[in-house]
Amino acid sequence: MTDARRAVGVLGGMGPAATIDFMAKVLLHSQAAQGDAGREQDNVRLIVDSNPAVPDRNAAVAGTGPSPGPALAAMAQGLARAGATFLVMPCNAAHAFAADVIAATPLPFVHLIEETVHAVRRDHAHVRRVGVLAVAATADARLYERALEPLDFTAIVPTGAARERFMEGVWAIKAGRLDSGRAIVAESARALVAAGADLVIAGCTEVPLVLDSDDLSVPLIDATDVLARRTVAYARGEALPQR
Amino acid sequence: MTDARRAVGVLGGMGPAATIDFMAKVLLHSQAAQGDAGREQDNVRLIVDSNPAVPDRNAAVAGTGPSPGPALAAMAQGLARAGATFLVMPCNAAHAFAADVIAATPLPFVHLIEETVHAVRRDHAHVRRVGVLAVAATADARLYERALEPLDFTAIVPTGAARERFMEGVWAIKAGRLDSGRAIVAESARALVAAGADLVIAGCTEVPLVLDSDDLSVPLIDATDVLARRTVAYARGEALPQR
Repeated sequence: MTDARRAVGVLGGMGPAATIDFMAKVLLHSQAAQGDAGREQDNVRLIVDSNPAVPDRNAAVAGTGPSPGPALAAMAQGLARAGATFLVMPCNAAHAFAADVIAATPLPFVHLIEETVHAVRRDHAHVRRVGVLAVAATADARLYERALEPLDFTAIVPTGAARERFMEGVWAIKAGRLDSGRAIVAESARALVAAGADLVIAGCTEVPLVLDSDDLSVPLIDATDVLARRTVAYARGEALPQR
Repeated sequence: MTDARRAVGVLGGMGPAATIDFMAKVLLHSQAAQGDAGREQDNVRLIVDSNPAVPDRNAAVAGTGPSPGPALAAMAQGLARAGATFLVMPCNAAHAFAADVIAATPLPFVHLIEETVHAVRRDHAHVRRVGVLAVAATADARLYERALEPLDFTAIVPTGAARERFMEGVWAIKAGRLDSGRAIVAESARALVAAGADLVIAGCTEVPLVLDSDDLSVPLIDATDVLARRTVAYARGEALPQR
């Protein structure tokens, strides 16, 4: 059962719908872990700061906007004060500023991108070319490349016009225009497959709001779902990562 | 636009799916208030303690279990430390312990049941007999009766075997068995209409997870949705209730 002493601090709001999606997946995996005997009281405690005012990660990495680092550090500290015992951040691009979060409190930090790449290595050992639906900040900071390449994976991320087009899809989803967002990100995913990807990571938390494995001819790995599963495992007592 | 100084503290996890439903409704009304020009950064900031370990409200009101008051007070204080500037609690039954929440911090508290009854009076002036899908704690503490009767409404709540049956439906929903929960609470709602209700309040946050107005011959008021709309209004600057 859940270790009641473990409360998960969630740095969220990037965007708010992605945070809700993450919480729903935590609940799903928490209920599955309990089985039919589960009581409401056995679910995972989440303390969530869904703060949509965090500065845009893409502008920050591009050098055209303020860093979200200070806001994320303040959120981490607030979550610690509210009782969180470890931290997660269901936004890929914000991991360009993970060092600010880690430095802000003594709490363990569960790293979305590391956990996702570990899951790919464990479950898809034959794969070599990994497509990543990554926004500009994630791509420019080489977040997935830095995790994938030491494990002999080749990362394929959208570049140039394809990246601009993918960003349009993400902005549409963030604005609640799911149908137009879905069409664009499905096109982006198929372009990664056409470029040789054996598997595609939904490396932006807006993507799984509109896309699932049925939309593609190769496996689609939902980084949000990976983080949710790992969050439940850690909340139920698995040893937390040390840094 | 949203007043960036107003962060909403949410006492949640009762149950976790109801908290997610509340957050989704806040996002919906927040996006609607912004219109097409809305940016992610303009959405409402929610700081949420989704704490499923809060002791059962029904057992506490019945005198057969510990009070959730101390846990709710500690959550309120944690949310204040994390930066919340006013508090909401998307669980009807927990309002039997609203005094503990209000006493725990100096923050304004937006009262789910008062807001819901105000919405009924404003939008359904002709109605006199109000059915309330209320769990045992809500009914035994007379939370809706105390708000409705001074305004000359008559409250009709499930009693006896009908209440037991409704509780079975709520437990099914909390356990994730939505189909069986839906069948039972729809039957409970229709029984209130048969008993003379001109309108039914979904006075338990699990109910709107499975039931909507199309399921009934009279209006169904979703208390979660009322609270979400009011939360967005307060976050965007409306004068907060004073106590």
